[in-house]
Formats: sequence, C-alpha cells, structure tokens
Amino acid sequence: MKYETRLFVGNDNQTKSLAERFDVKRYARRKRISLEEAGRVIRYRFLEEMRNKKGLDFIALGHNATDNCETMLLSLIKGKGLSGIAGIPEKRERIIRPLIDLKSEEIDDFLKKNNIPYVFDTTNLSLSHPRNYLRHLVLPFLREINPNLEETMRHTARILQEEDAYLKEVGAKLKENGVRKISGGYLIDKKIFLSYNFSVRRRVLKELFDDMSYSDIERVADHALDVDIKGQ
Amino acid sequence: MKYETRLFVGNDNQTKSLAERFDVKRYARRKRISLEEAGRVIRYRFLEEMRNKKGLDFIALGHNATDNCETMLLSLIKGKGLSGIAGIPEKRERIIRPLIDLKSEEIDDFLKKNNIPYVFDTTNLSLSHPRNYLRHLVLPFLREINPNLEETMRHTARILQEEDAYLKEVGAKLKENGVRKISGGYLIDKKIFLSYNFSVRRRVLKELFDDMSYSDIERVADHALDVDIKGQ
Repeated sequence: MKYETRLFVGNDNQTKSLAERFDVKRYARRKRISLEEAGRVIRYRFLEEMRNKKGLDFIALGHNATDNCETMLLSLIKGKGLSGIAGIPEKRERIIRPLIDLKSEEIDDFLKKNNIPYVFDTTNLSLSHPRNYLRHLVLPFLREINPNLEETMRHTARILQEEDAYLKEVGAKLKENGVRKISGGYLIDKKIFLSYNFSVRRRVLKELFDDMSYSDIERVADHALDVDIKGQ
Repeated sequence: MKYETRLFVGNDNQTKSLAERFDVKRYARRKRISLEEAGRVIRYRFLEEMRNKKGLDFIALGHNATDNCETMLLSLIKGKGLSGIAGIPEKRERIIRPLIDLKSEEIDDFLKKNNIPYVFDTTNLSLSHPRNYLRHLVLPFLREINPNLEETMRHTARILQEEDAYLKEVGAKLKENGVRKISGGYLIDKKIFLSYNFSVRRRVLKELFDDMSYSDIERVADHALDVDIKGQ
C-alpha cells in the first residue's frame, strides 16, 4: 500500500505542550476511567480536532504489528471480548495505520540504518505497564512457539475484525428494527428481539446498557423478555 | 452443576494397552497430521466406541480451566481463528467436561487434601511441548496482570463459543440454501452466496475446500464468484 499525502508529523515539543493543555488526571477522575484510557480519549479527540482545522483527509498513527500482538493478548487476558481480541484495525473512520504490518523491530532497524532521529519514550521500558510487561517478558516466549508471531496475529486480527463487524452489523439491524429510544430508556419489540440469535441480543443489550452487570444481561437476553412485560 | 451418573474411569493399565492397540505414528503419517493430533483423534474415537458398547450417556473428560487458558492462547499464537480461540467447550455432543471451571491447582489441592491417588504424566513437565511451555513459563506472567486469569478466560470462552456457533449457524444456512454437492465438487448458487456477509462466505469456503490457500479463499469469497462462471 502506498500513501500519497501531505503528512503532518507531531514532534516532541508539541507532545509536551499537549500534555500541559489537558488535565488528563481530572478527566479520568470525572469520567471514572483509568489514566491510560483518559489519555487515549483526549489524544484521539485532539487529533481529530487538528485534522479538521487543517483540512486534512486522514490521521496516520504509528501502531505496528507488535503493538497489535500486545493489544490482542491484553484483551484476551483482561476479558475484553471479540472486539478487543480482534486487535488494532488498519483503518477506522479518519484514522489509518500505515505501519500496522511492520514489527517494532523492523521499524527500529530502519530508523537506525537510515540515521533518522527519533524520540524514545522511556516509560516504554517500565514493566509496571502491562503492555511493556507483555512486550519484554511474554512475547519473547511466544515467539519460541511461533517465530512469525506478528504476521500470524495480524492475519488473525483481520479475520476477527471482519467477523466482529458482521456481528455488530446484525446487532445494528436488531436495533434499527426492534429498539426505539424513549425518555429514560428504550422500547424493545419483544418479538423482533427474540427473533435474533442470543449472541446478537447480548451484544445489543451490552451496548444499550453498558453499566448493567454481565449476569443481568445474560438473564435478559436469555428469557426475561420472553414473559410479558407491563405495558406490552 | 451436578452429575449423577455411573462413572467408568480409565486407569493406567488401560491407557498403556490402548497405546499398544493403536499405531498412532502410522495413523499420523497416513493422514499427514501431527502425532498429537493423531493421538487426539484416536483417543476420542476409542472413547465414543466404549461409550456405545457400554450403553453410557456421556463421556466425562478432565479438562480444566487452566487447560482452557492454554488452548485459547495457543490458538491465538498459532493463528487458529475464532473456533480455536474460543477454547474448550463444556459440552459437545456426547462429551461433557465437569471440571472445566476449576483451575488445575484447585484439582491438585483437592486430590492431595483427600489422599486420592492419581497418575502424573511426566511428559507434562517437558517444556518442548508448547502447552507445557505456556503453562510453566507464560501463564505465571499473565497472572501478574490478571490474578483471576482462569475465571476471566472461561467467561470469555463461553461468549466466544456462542458467537462462533452463531457464525457457524449462518454458514450452515448458506450451505443449505446455496450449495449442492456434486461429483467432484460443489455447485454454488452465485446470487445466494453473495447475499451473505463476506465473513460467512469465507467460513463456508474454508469448510468446503480445506486444502485451499487462505488467499485463494479470500479472492473467491470476495469477488471471483461475482463474474459469470462457465456453465452458469
């Protein structure tokens, strides 16, 4: 693949001023999310803002095939479900990731061989971050089992992402045909809801009521809607 | 869950005579599969034979939650796709796995505490088996990130198995409506085939033509059937 485009490349000073401009800690506390998640949300929002202001087509991010392995593994370990286990997409809306098929090692080698200066984030060495922990302590073991780890997992990621997208698509159809937003909640058409597969029902409920416990979701997806509900 | 049933428990001598009765090596060579895979096929076939002969309802196997973690990880590392990543099912046809929610450590503790004699397969210690390698060298690291690794991954396995079963179900519908077996191959109804999602088409092709390369499958699933084929 070849990208012919004007590239806007962030540098270290810009990163610093960015960190100062946003109070990530406060945002995390307010939204009750982790510091990492807060940083992620703010970063993507800022990039989209910049893209818009400068009239650019895409935001190109530097995620690579090794990042993808870490994301897939971390999602599996932490119980994130298919959308997480499917890893990092090559393209999502205005975001593209032209380096996603390269291992981090290949990128480092290229930079060194061509004497290209680069910024090394020293927090990438701290083993207290699960991501670094995986990169330095776990991936080397997994490469003993499969030396083409990155390539294999990129391949799997692509397939899982498509399968996940299909399940989302069916879920969207359920919502379109059977769910109407009303004040304080949703009106769900029982007959249409139950005509969909259990997995699809569960996904839709999880999306609509993301603070609902998993066992409650299962219960509702399974049979609670199968009895008459007041007003229906 | 409670199983009230007459249990037929295999012992060490039976295992040995079983190994002698079947030439696993020859079977593996003949079928061009690995020794492990050949052992698996022969083992399951023998168990089903025994079940039938003795008129029993189920075959209860000892797979536990730690085995499930290994299977899920190994599938992810080796590029096995959703059906593999979804791990070990609690029930499949005549096979049940009553220990699937227990960690291997819990089972060992129980046996020791109750002075129950058990057979320890020393090949389980050899790190040249990827499964043991994961168990002894990788899982301990992953438990640092998630101490409830087994529980989380059992939960994920259940969801992924249901989502995978749904995708299989849709694929079966495609085959039922759009695929007919003919001598030397299959007759595929182009219009019906293309009315299904790409992911489903790919799964069906993979199932029908399991010796087809992945890129050929993608090409056919994507557009090759979109042009007129001779005879159609």
